Amino acid sequence: MYSMTQLVRRAAQTNGNAIATLDGERSQTWKEFAVRVAAFGGGLQKLGIANGDCAAILALNSDRYFEFMFAVPWAGGVFQPVNTRLAGPEVTYWLTDSEAKVVFVDASFVPLIEKIRGDLPHVEHFVFIDDGDVPAGYRSYTDLVSADPMPDAGREGDDVAGLFYTGGTTGRSKGVMLSHANLVVNALQAFSVFDMSPTDKVLHVAPMFHIADAFVCLMTAATAGSNFFQPAFDPVSTMKGVQEYSIDRMLLVPTMINMFVNHPEVENFDLKSLSQILYGASPMPEPVIKKAMEILPHTQFYQAYGQTEAAPCITLLDAGRHTFEGPLAGKMKSAGQAIAGVELAVLDEKGAPVETGVVGEVCMKGPNVMLGYRNMEEQTNNTIVDGWLHTGDGGYLDEDGFLFIVDRVKDMIVSGGENVYSAEVENAIYQHDAVAQCAVIGIPSEKWGEQVHVIVVPKEGMDVSEDDLIAHCKTLIAGFKCPRSVSYQSAPLPLSGAGKILKTELRKPFWKDGERNVN
Amino acid sequence: MYSMTQLVRRAAQTNGNAIATLDGERSQTWKEFAVRVAAFGGGLQKLGIANGDCAAILALNSDRYFEFMFAVPWAGGVFQPVNTRLAGPEVTYWLTDSEAKVVFVDASFVPLIEKIRGDLPHVEHFVFIDDGDVPAGYRSYTDLVSADPMPDAGREGDDVAGLFYTGGTTGRSKGVMLSHANLVVNALQAFSVFDMSPTDKVLHVAPMFHIADAFVCLMTAATAGSNFFQPAFDPVSTMKGVQEYSIDRMLLVPTMINMFVNHPEVENFDLKSLSQILYGASPMPEPVIKKAMEILPHTQFYQAYGQTEAAPCITLLDAGRHTFEGPLAGKMKSAGQAIAGVELAVLDEKGAPVETGVVGEVCMKGPNVMLGYRNMEEQTNNTIVDGWLHTGDGGYLDEDGFLFIVDRVKDMIVSGGENVYSAEVENAIYQHDAVAQCAVIGIPSEKWGEQVHVIVVPKEGMDVSEDDLIAHCKTLIAGFKCPRSVSYQSAPLPLSGAGKILKTELRKPFWKDGERNVN
Repeated sequence: MYSMTQLVRRAAQTNGNAIATLDGERSQTWKEFAVRVAAFGGGLQKLGIANGDCAAILALNSDRYFEFMFAVPWAGGVFQPVNTRLAGPEVTYWLTDSEAKVVFVDASFVPLIEKIRGDLPHVEHFVFIDDGDVPAGYRSYTDLVSADPMPDAGREGDDVAGLFYTGGTTGRSKGVMLSHANLVVNALQAFSVFDMSPTDKVLHVAPMFHIADAFVCLMTAATAGSNFFQPAFDPVSTMKGVQEYSIDRMLLVPTMINMFVNHPEVENFDLKSLSQILYGASPMPEPVIKKAMEILPHTQFYQAYGQTEAAPCITLLDAGRHTFEGPLAGKMKSAGQAIAGVELAVLDEKGAPVETGVVGEVCMKGPNVMLGYRNMEEQTNNTIVDGWLHTGDGGYLDEDGFLFIVDRVKDMIVSGGENVYSAEVENAIYQHDAVAQCAVIGIPSEKWGEQVHVIVVPKEGMDVSEDDLIAHCKTLIAGFKCPRSVSYQSAPLPLSGAGKILKTELRKPFWKDGERNVN
Repeated sequence: MYSMTQLVRRAAQTNGNAIATLDGERSQTWKEFAVRVAAFGGGLQKLGIANGDCAAILALNSDRYFEFMFAVPWAGGVFQPVNTRLAGPEVTYWLTDSEAKVVFVDASFVPLIEKIRGDLPHVEHFVFIDDGDVPAGYRSYTDLVSADPMPDAGREGDDVAGLFYTGGTTGRSKGVMLSHANLVVNALQAFSVFDMSPTDKVLHVAPMFHIADAFVCLMTAATAGSNFFQPAFDPVSTMKGVQEYSIDRMLLVPTMINMFVNHPEVENFDLKSLSQILYGASPMPEPVIKKAMEILPHTQFYQAYGQTEAAPCITLLDAGRHTFEGPLAGKMKSAGQAIAGVELAVLDEKGAPVETGVVGEVCMKGPNVMLGYRNMEEQTNNTIVDGWLHTGDGGYLDEDGFLFIVDRVKDMIVSGGENVYSAEVENAIYQHDAVAQCAVIGIPSEKWGEQVHVIVVPKEGMDVSEDDLIAHCKTLIAGFKCPRSVSYQSAPLPLSGAGKILKTELRKPFWKDGERNVN
């Protein structure tokens, strides 16, 4: 059977003297990491973590985050990464719903935890994971990981290993229960397209609380590669890290790639070691990937599409398809093809497959489909129907089996009876030189039901009039898809912790009671 | 969940217009293959195959063998490949134990089936899979696959998909039950080391009844590559096939590689397309792989080690380790390292791990471990103990986690209280120029219990005396390991259907009642 902890033992066996984690001054080999995880497991056991108990973490990226991800399952527990962008009440909800018994916190989040400490009836211990003085009311990480090692609790297969709450960009957060099998198999499935090796040096800058980077952690554990950490993405620090450690692989979300390749300092660093960038988690505007391919000509780009409920990867667009010329061109706007062991289909409202080229809901089957939502049987049954995981994304398959995501079903605008996919409109708007950032939403319209509206952040020192922008769009997409109104702001658009633009926030001022009356 | 049939649908979706199978004049795309499998499934259903029923095949390699492997699970059944080297009574045993209801037969095996037809109470239908006149008492394959298509029976996960009887080189054959999950996941696990792609052209010449080639079939289905077939391995036909179709990948067993690279015609063919050879299923003598690397300098070699009970792959030695120089050298005598998702250990008689470098029994855990032996609960429980699959192979792990197989536990010779591993002795003997083939066995000795004996097939026109051969061995291995007696024969050594030397046959003349009194 599968287990996350078997990956650790195998890594120690097959690449034991290679670096498992390096974070600033701290580094350890895979052999040392395996010993560490067993001791950390012993420490968790002493704190009362037993089979199926939840331990949560609220922290920026670090080697200790990586240790936590493997030590909690070693002790038989369930690891719960907490989104670092949440407000206090949201954190309270996540930790209460999960019934987490132990919470790991770094220095950045002690103030937040202190505000809600009284509202967390299930939490028995707080552990401070940074070096330096341990605040009152917290246990020391160093003490915890110095406990007597425990044997692996031996959880595997369908036992819950991780509990990932969905981003919460719409509706109430749901706790996605992922099994040992889900998490391990998805890494193996990805290897059918995305090659990784024991000599990889992977930099973790995308937030580790997000399933996308957890997926990368599982892949590096499965191949016994080396992991490097930075607390969070910052263009210049990331460039420095790549140069200093000769990083060869990195996961970024499109907004990070945008900031990275458009940063004036990008020319000043040696980034030639960077052989692969995996990106995903939100749609990639074509001008951004084009720029990225120009700025980083030595780098192969892979796009992953998926969601937490699929642990997470569903499709991959391989590096060979990142081209504008030749027989492999023409697929760059797609999310790629189903990875091996995933069955992918686009279904209509009744659950029947639609024809090639027709938009419907993206659905999939495979061993990577979640166990379900914690304590939400009804939502689980609405999401996994006849074995099909319903992603909530609208898309279509072309005749070569490439998946094109047109929008979140929830972000689709219905205007005058026509479906307008915001991503398609955004793509057109991003091709205007003056646009730094944009988001297309539906706003109320007496005439059309909803009308297409765009919020634009112009590039510094540039601007574009409403008429010009609409005229620009008309050269690229059908008239009914073009914005009917534009608003401007100079501040960056609000992002979720995963780097997705928070359209719920942007819609609020336009809708009565702040809520659009769809799903 | 996993299923073999999902691989077919995905291949039709992601690489639908590429060749799925090509065999002589016949060829079909993956889209056509998916249609074919559904019709073939419908035909099986009409013959009474329902969920869990067994359908067997006794045939040489062909595209139809490949269709059979996927159509039987599509109909909900269990496919049973039958070893083509078996005698009538053995085939009777296999088909009776499996309770196969339908048997697929090609022209080569009609005579054998006619002899035993009366002894097969469970078989209801025989299907003739070759073109041409259908013999009396057989159904036509063409009719069968022209049936109305049926929807996939939907078996998956832990449902039995394949029933592979073990080679039967020792003791009674056991029916290894492999699930949909076992077979699919092992292909994914292998991708952690062995890269395959949708553009692959794979030639099947190793016998398809053997799990090693079935594993390759699963890998090509998982990546939607193209499959080419030859009825059986023959050095010159295989060279012709590689040249004609620009084959890039092939699975061979060591005896085939030996015949291939030492054949005088090997210089006359263009074999540059052959980018990878995967070999395994029995130990590879070093002089053979050395020669292969000289003759095929463009080819990367990968070694796989496993067994039917592991569906089958446990370890892989990657191409980079096939080198005699530089930092990666020194591992070529090993079987490589555990593939991702496999936990590998060497255990002593009590089930405790031995130290690095110490010989014990090779054991593993993973999602690829069989469901069990059919109708043999006791043997299953003796083989899978505390979750560990006991392979019956003796081996050790070095400090870098590389597995060295020293022998089948059953082929180990105990002479004067010392363990002698026949593979090690054979390796020494193969380094003598006059030796074409050899097999080391234990024969009875009053003084030593067993003594080391070797049967040698000299190269044509060459010979070597007993004294010379023993002297040669003494320069390479310890005295107690060297043969004490030698016998010669000019005929090739007897091989099992999988190309393993049948040591049970070779031992018979030396032991009372033809049976060595161990295990």
